[in-house]
Amino acid sequence: MKKWYIDAGPDSDVVVSSRVRLARNFKGYPFPRRSTGQQQERIIAETCEALFIDNPILQKSLELFRFKDISPIDKQVLVEKHLISKELADSNLDTAALISKDEQISIMINEEDHLRIQCLASGMQLEKVFELCNFLDDTISEKIDIAYNDKIGYLTSCPTNVGTGIRVSLMLHLPALVMTGYIGPVLESCGKLGVAVRGLYGENTEAYGNMYQLSNQITLGKSEKDIVMSIQHIGSQVIEQERLLRKELQRKNSGKLEDRIMRSYGIMRYCRVLTSEEALRRLSDIRLGINLGYINELNETDINEMVLNIQPGNLLKEAGKLLKPEDRDIKRAEYVRSRINKNQSI
Amino acid sequence: MKKWYIDAGPDSDVVVSSRVRLARNFKGYPFPRRSTGQQQERIIAETCEALFIDNPILQKSLELFRFKDISPIDKQVLVEKHLISKELADSNLDTAALISKDEQISIMINEEDHLRIQCLASGMQLEKVFELCNFLDDTISEKIDIAYNDKIGYLTSCPTNVGTGIRVSLMLHLPALVMTGYIGPVLESCGKLGVAVRGLYGENTEAYGNMYQLSNQITLGKSEKDIVMSIQHIGSQVIEQERLLRKELQRKNSGKLEDRIMRSYGIMRYCRVLTSEEALRRLSDIRLGINLGYINELNETDINEMVLNIQPGNLLKEAGKLLKPEDRDIKRAEYVRSRINKNQSI
Repeated sequence: MKKWYIDAGPDSDVVVSSRVRLARNFKGYPFPRRSTGQQQERIIAETCEALFIDNPILQKSLELFRFKDISPIDKQVLVEKHLISKELADSNLDTAALISKDEQISIMINEEDHLRIQCLASGMQLEKVFELCNFLDDTISEKIDIAYNDKIGYLTSCPTNVGTGIRVSLMLHLPALVMTGYIGPVLESCGKLGVAVRGLYGENTEAYGNMYQLSNQITLGKSEKDIVMSIQHIGSQVIEQERLLRKELQRKNSGKLEDRIMRSYGIMRYCRVLTSEEALRRLSDIRLGINLGYINELNETDINEMVLNIQPGNLLKEAGKLLKPEDRDIKRAEYVRSRINKNQSI
Repeated sequence: MKKWYIDAGPDSDVVVSSRVRLARNFKGYPFPRRSTGQQQERIIAETCEALFIDNPILQKSLELFRFKDISPIDKQVLVEKHLISKELADSNLDTAALISKDEQISIMINEEDHLRIQCLASGMQLEKVFELCNFLDDTISEKIDIAYNDKIGYLTSCPTNVGTGIRVSLMLHLPALVMTGYIGPVLESCGKLGVAVRGLYGENTEAYGNMYQLSNQITLGKSEKDIVMSIQHIGSQVIEQERLLRKELQRKNSGKLEDRIMRSYGIMRYCRVLTSEEALRRLSDIRLGINLGYINELNETDINEMVLNIQPGNLLKEAGKLLKPEDRDIKRAEYVRSRINKNQSI
């Protein structure tokens, strides 16, 4: 099954992925952290039933992961693929997730809320993932009473999600904004417009590899559609600025920029030891190099795939055993070399 | 005509080249710096006649360069190839050199002494180049009265060359001694044994690319043969130490060493801007990588060739025009990429 990140989406020169997530809770059950094991189990069972009963296609496509049965490494892999949250992986409740084979859909069960319906797609496809989320939300709501208040909207465990319960986010690759130092003012303006900016792995993570996640801070007092449109609009402005600066950089200082990018490419083709931090930095250079036409043997979706596969959990999973950090850095270098050389020989 | 540095000589894992140089002066003429233009011209003419009159092969093989007719770039190229000294290139006397097509032989005329007979070969071949120098010296001495004193030997312009007038030198590549820090004590012992150590371009130049030139300090009170044997002997000890340390480095810290070497290789294959200092450093890594079996697409003679061709004069000559330093760094990167890729495609 082809994963979502293998497809090149629109605006993939800057937009890595689009994501929409809806927080929903069952009426008549306490929030997960205050619920009993039996209640947690019922939430899982009822969610599956609601989705599958009239939808054989959904039943075929969604796989149920029950986390009490799953190894820490397998959980870490799902976290690294952004399919589940770190909180879900670390939870000691009876948690689960329904994940589609193409990894576009992930419905987390018994995280902070009973349900977190999340859809992902490559490039700028907010409307598409929003529609998919809505379809899943509607399918569930037909069978299940969802906690909803006419005045304030959907009820959620954390007040920041109350209202629409929606989080709309774009993962953007912004190397030119970072190189030129304009990233600071741009992020500041985003903040003023109610857009939160985070690093590659959500809140409190650094912007490794010049990857920035833009998402709405407010879920209350606006329609879901308006929130989607506003992130799309603000995102588009950031994208345009990044594109202008890339052209400017290439014009002004083409030799040095190309040198930096091509050195990163050379290092990735030949290194023997590679930390994940360096890998993300070099992949950022290579991604920019693809966009500027310096590198033709790879495309952006190859980079998406590598950004996931260089993560520690994915490497451990691939190795099939525990690895010391220094051995992980060797495995990572091995993976990167062979992945790049695969394209070289095409 | 195949140049000497294209052949791999013995011990080429450590020894880049062997060189012997004899200083000789005509009897009855003042040393060049005190001679007239007419005298300088006669020295050139008589040297050619002495070498060529009974030796059609020498005549065919040696080409006469008269430096008053030669452009600064062409002179610089000869300096970079170690065929003439910087002093000769900068001299305002009527200077010349007889250089063989394979660049093994160079006889400088009217440098510090009337004649500097120099022979070069790849790897450890001191005896061979010594014999070749002797042959040329004998050929000249048959026709020309050489300034010689029975008590002290050959008379030379600078007292440090008086006696045998011989300088025997080995160019060694010593990355493991440098990496482990043992280079200091080793060079100190060499000094105590009467061996001078210099960088790639003779006196007062840095040891770029971990290249060290060992040569005799004393020319007086020992036979020429003894001086050759002693440099060969001391050189062999340094070579053995370098080899032991390479094995040790590879055993102890193979991942990191291989990583460093292969990154240098990757950078050289893809860089777009390259200073000569960095180029020498990376070529040193690659040379070591060839020796340790990490790199198979290149061999040591490819490195010899590149070490010469990345020099500024060679790049200018190749470009056929003057280049600003930043353009030179771009040309150098271009040359290195295409030279390495030539081997890749074999």
